[in-house]
Amino acid sequence: MFFASDNGAPCPAPVMAALAAANDGPAMPYGADPLTARAVAMIRDLFEAPGAAVHLVATGTAANALALGAVCPAYGAVFCADQAHILHDECGAPEFYTGGAKLLPVAAPDGRMDPAALAAAVDRLAGAGVHAVRPAAVSLSNLSELGTLHTPAQVAELAAIAHARGLAVHMDGARLANALATAGCSPAEATWKAGVDVLSLGGTKNGLMGAEAVVIFDPARAADFDRRRKRGGHLLSKHRYLAAQIAAWLEGGLWLDLATRANAMAARLAAGIAALPGGRLLHPVQGNMVFATLPAPSLARARAAGARFYPHGDGHGAVRLVASWATTAAEVDGFLAALRG
Amino acid sequence: MFFASDNGAPCPAPVMAALAAANDGPAMPYGADPLTARAVAMIRDLFEAPGAAVHLVATGTAANALALGAVCPAYGAVFCADQAHILHDECGAPEFYTGGAKLLPVAAPDGRMDPAALAAAVDRLAGAGVHAVRPAAVSLSNLSELGTLHTPAQVAELAAIAHARGLAVHMDGARLANALATAGCSPAEATWKAGVDVLSLGGTKNGLMGAEAVVIFDPARAADFDRRRKRGGHLLSKHRYLAAQIAAWLEGGLWLDLATRANAMAARLAAGIAALPGGRLLHPVQGNMVFATLPAPSLARARAAGARFYPHGDGHGAVRLVASWATTAAEVDGFLAALRG
Amino acid sequence: MFFASDNGAPCPAPVMAALAAANDGPAMPYGADPLTARAVAMIRDLFEAPGAAVHLVATGTAANALALGAVCPAYGAVFCADQAHILHDECGAPEFYTGGAKLLPVAAPDGRMDPAALAAAVDRLAGAGVHAVRPAAVSLSNLSELGTLHTPAQVAELAAIAHARGLAVHMDGARLANALATAGCSPAEATWKAGVDVLSLGGTKNGLMGAEAVVIFDPARAADFDRRRKRGGHLLSKHRYLAAQIAAWLEGGLWLDLATRANAMAARLAAGIAALPGGRLLHPVQGNMVFATLPAPSLARARAAGARFYPHGDGHGAVRLVASWATTAAEVDGFLAALRG
Amino acid sequence: MFFASDNGAPCPAPVMAALAAANDGPAMPYGADPLTARAVAMIRDLFEAPGAAVHLVATGTAANALALGAVCPAYGAVFCADQAHILHDECGAPEFYTGGAKLLPVAAPDGRMDPAALAAAVDRLAGAGVHAVRPAAVSLSNLSELGTLHTPAQVAELAAIAHARGLAVHMDGARLANALATAGCSPAEATWKAGVDVLSLGGTKNGLMGAEAVVIFDPARAADFDRRRKRGGHLLSKHRYLAAQIAAWLEGGLWLDLATRANAMAARLAAGIAALPGGRLLHPVQGNMVFATLPAPSLARARAAGARFYPHGDGHGAVRLVASWATTAAEVDGFLAALRG
Repeated sequence: MFFASDNGAPCPAPVMAALAAANDGPAMPYGADPLTARAVAMIRDLFEAPGAAVHLVATGTAANALALGAVCPAYGAVFCADQAHILHDECGAPEFYTGGAKLLPVAAPDGRMDPAALAAAVDRLAGAGVHAVRPAAVSLSNLSELGTLHTPAQVAELAAIAHARGLAVHMDGARLANALATAGCSPAEATWKAGVDVLSLGGTKNGLMGAEAVVIFDPARAADFDRRRKRGGHLLSKHRYLAAQIAAWLEGGLWLDLATRANAMAARLAAGIAALPGGRLLHPVQGNMVFATLPAPSLARARAAGARFYPHGDGHGAVRLVASWATTAAEVDGFLAALRG
Repeated sequence: MFFASDNGAPCPAPVMAALAAANDGPAMPYGADPLTARAVAMIRDLFEAPGAAVHLVATGTAANALALGAVCPAYGAVFCADQAHILHDECGAPEFYTGGAKLLPVAAPDGRMDPAALAAAVDRLAGAGVHAVRPAAVSLSNLSELGTLHTPAQVAELAAIAHARGLAVHMDGARLANALATAGCSPAEATWKAGVDVLSLGGTKNGLMGAEAVVIFDPARAADFDRRRKRGGHLLSKHRYLAAQIAAWLEGGLWLDLATRANAMAARLAAGIAALPGGRLLHPVQGNMVFATLPAPSLARARAAGARFYPHGDGHGAVRLVASWATTAAEVDGFLAALRG
Repeated sequence: MFFASDNGAPCPAPVMAALAAANDGPAMPYGADPLTARAVAMIRDLFEAPGAAVHLVATGTAANALALGAVCPAYGAVFCADQAHILHDECGAPEFYTGGAKLLPVAAPDGRMDPAALAAAVDRLAGAGVHAVRPAAVSLSNLSELGTLHTPAQVAELAAIAHARGLAVHMDGARLANALATAGCSPAEATWKAGVDVLSLGGTKNGLMGAEAVVIFDPARAADFDRRRKRGGHLLSKHRYLAAQIAAWLEGGLWLDLATRANAMAARLAAGIAALPGGRLLHPVQGNMVFATLPAPSLARARAAGARFYPHGDGHGAVRLVASWATTAAEVDGFLAALRG
Repeated sequence: MFFASDNGAPCPAPVMAALAAANDGPAMPYGADPLTARAVAMIRDLFEAPGAAVHLVATGTAANALALGAVCPAYGAVFCADQAHILHDECGAPEFYTGGAKLLPVAAPDGRMDPAALAAAVDRLAGAGVHAVRPAAVSLSNLSELGTLHTPAQVAELAAIAHARGLAVHMDGARLANALATAGCSPAEATWKAGVDVLSLGGTKNGLMGAEAVVIFDPARAADFDRRRKRGGHLLSKHRYLAAQIAAWLEGGLWLDLATRANAMAARLAAGIAALPGGRLLHPVQGNMVFATLPAPSLARARAAGARFYPHGDGHGAVRLVASWATTAAEVDGFLAALRG
């Protein structure tokens, strides 16, 4: 009954098998190996973006911060949802990699920035002239930090606001697979076709040991990205092992299968909670995360039964429950039973 | 016949087995798992440093740059050998993680800083007052970048110069196992007992998939190191897989066995080259690296036979040959045969 | 009728005379001149802080950013009023000089942080652990950005919250003279006796050509501040001219006379506006700044008559009017007459 | 007998008069005043560069560091003479303003980079690929740090090497007036016509209280320079006083008159030293600086007579003597008499 984080899950068998298969003889380091070329090509194919610059890293924070560093100068500002991971959960990594930019929160009901609020915030800052930092980028998360989906149309609406004002669009896709599994659209439709310029494509929360990709759709924005990655200490020498994970994950659509499984478990959780006296869902459940309030005795029983999960927000009885590819129906049902008492 | 880098080697079976064993059920992320506690404890035991702060990361550049960031302010200077990896091969990562410090080269015959040159350089800079950055740290590599060993006495001599002037001592131990295998001293003798304050303990060049440890012997120097790591994007979420590698590597002395194997292959290479007409060793071979000049026809034959290796320096016929735990006697002998023609 | 900024005023005669007097023969550069020693001693005396570290710079942004850099690490957070100058009007200078820290706004009715809101914000961030930056400093402005005064008791209340949580207290004293002129307390009572650790003492908005001081009351916090200043490009070579300004400004209490004059003109403005049909003061007028709403035709008439001033906030008829030492009663009366039509 | 620094001189009467004249009534702050417009126009005219971006700042370190920040990314390298001021005397300001770039010394006999050494250094670094920072700029000083002149042809030779490799060319013109006074060429010939992209135009060492200009000849390189200046804390609010200095200095060629005077005094010093038994000039005297070795008893006598000057280099009897616009023939002759004993 582990609902603390999708980062707590192990890796599925095909990923482990791919690592074992990659562990064969010497390979040129730093990405000059055939597996890396293959993983990069798979991502380009999948996103219908043959010219995209694709760089692999081991953590989502690295992916986000490096991506933002490529689109926002040190004297710039990044607008993001007021619950954004980049704002609260990365210990200032975006500030570090941009050289000191500002991250500015925008009201985001259910995790999705309000378009009018975004436009107003950008315009207000731009109007402040040289005394204020320059609006440089918008960053949105899909899934959002509250587990909701941005449809391609919603992404496009925010991106149009950004582009009309000369800002770049970054998507934190730590859970993009979960979003795609719900949206049913193609990776291209969910990203560059909707206006995303730079994507953090997350694998770690969806089954990998530690592998993410920064996908820069317009290669003109990618100048020197390889040096940015290296000086951040994120160019892995034995790069084949990153690549092997990515390749196995994408192969045959495994990444979407894993996400579909996680989403189904979240839906099962949500349905059970909604049916519970005193249970209330706080946001639409559109991926693998459930935010809910539950009666304190229910929560106490679940914890006593061994369930792991985090409180949400300022902790007035709200909780965050995250399902992963490895979550089982039995876990969910056991948890719901414990809640019911 | 792969002598391009010890980063090109695969992982030994016990490491792969440890990863597979770690891949079992959920685990709390970000280092709050039992395997991480175990790996940290093993390092503390091994170094006879029960109070040391130990943090795992995935790359050597991250380990070095984070370590230097902990001991050198933005307006400081780090003195290092003029061939140092931190100076030439990390794309400015130390500058990034320190916030813009200067790395100042010191003459280092055979890869080891000349003590008098170090003292003079520190004193000269300190004398420049506020117009110059503050001398803050000395960084030495063991093995050195030219494959030579710093004995504990040599480390102690440099450390005494540093400490007498208020500078911290960092050791880039990307190949510390190789150094220990040659020196025969204990990890403690090679490091803190000789005056090392902060160590980058390298695993990746010695058999791991991607795992290093920053060991800060005086925990007072480690304040907020966890935040430094996080904001660099180097706090791996599925931390158990880093820890599993480290634990397997140290278990039963595997790390020294692997290093001993690599060193033996380098010695075999060196002996063969020294016996070759026109072959000349450029530096003492005291670990797993051989620097040599060889006749151009020999090198051409070796390349034609499929050998991989890099030229060294400005490329007047000098080469760098690196052996790894996976290098075989047959590879070495085949290479020597190709050289001989 | 110039109410756009106190930065628009010229310098009073004693300041110009002091510059002329200082312009005599050679002087050692970079602060090693007798005038600098004198100015520093005058500040220490005035603040009853004989051990304080005092450094002069030419701009208020430099003073604030350098001061914050001395008390907040790159992975830290500075809490400030949600209208703070450091937050909105310094183009990211605090982020630059701290190396990328976060500035976090706290609700501040009438320009003074709500103590409960501050405490809650600090505690919430501290509770987030390694995933969030570390609470490091509180910065308050006196006068506040809305022209109100922090009494020593109000400073002390905020400082106690900060100190209880291990945070340093910075005061942006760009208009400290105006605050003191109103409060009637001593410089020491307004600052370190109330818990201020580091002060930006502003002269430029109060008559100087361009001279400010960073006063660090606990010299232990000032380590390497001289190098921080130098690497920011803020160590003026012909330092005597900075020092001459400061000395003339403090001599015989000129600084308080100038502030008293400016405050009186603001009070005259405020009284006139309050008496005007449709005129409304937005915040208590406790220094040299008046925030008010006025009827659009009144504002149009004043502009037509040549008055200079800025709209305030999102511009729904609110204006900011700033008096300086050079503002005359005739200017104020002329402006009020134009408003009345 | 003040030869310690040209930074020790006072300001000539026209500069003080201009400050007094500027001190009249209100003026819009932050450069939106007519004097600033006039000073900028004068610089553009003088340099025959109507489209140049011109920004004023108060210190030479700010000018250099901001200029380098505009042409070198954080992961870049700046090549400079091995005695360069930016390398040794600015406490890491260039590293700070670039975000952590490397400054790489090039052999520079008599203060002028050896062209072949420059080309080789750039090529070597470029060849290192992603593991090394990217060559981004060349910075040369005119006068050089050793008091010698770069003729337009010498500038052009270095600039051609830089431009052929995609690097920008920065000139530290802290003593450009002294160089022009010797070279007799036009400001344009000395700078952009010879390939200089960005110039630090120094006024402070040549009579100003504290005023410099960053001149970016290609405005495309100047994007956001105003924000860079602001976030460095270098946008002076009472900007008219910076502008007044610059305007008075350029008016009627005063700047060149002042430089000519200083150069003549240096020539007089040099002639006297060369005629002295045991006196030896170390570098050609082509501006206002003299580097010489002198017998220890001579130096002791001069010091005893009240002369101020600094030792040069590692201090084996070498000294640096700097003349300013305010140096008199009597001072020089008195110094020489003291040397002679």
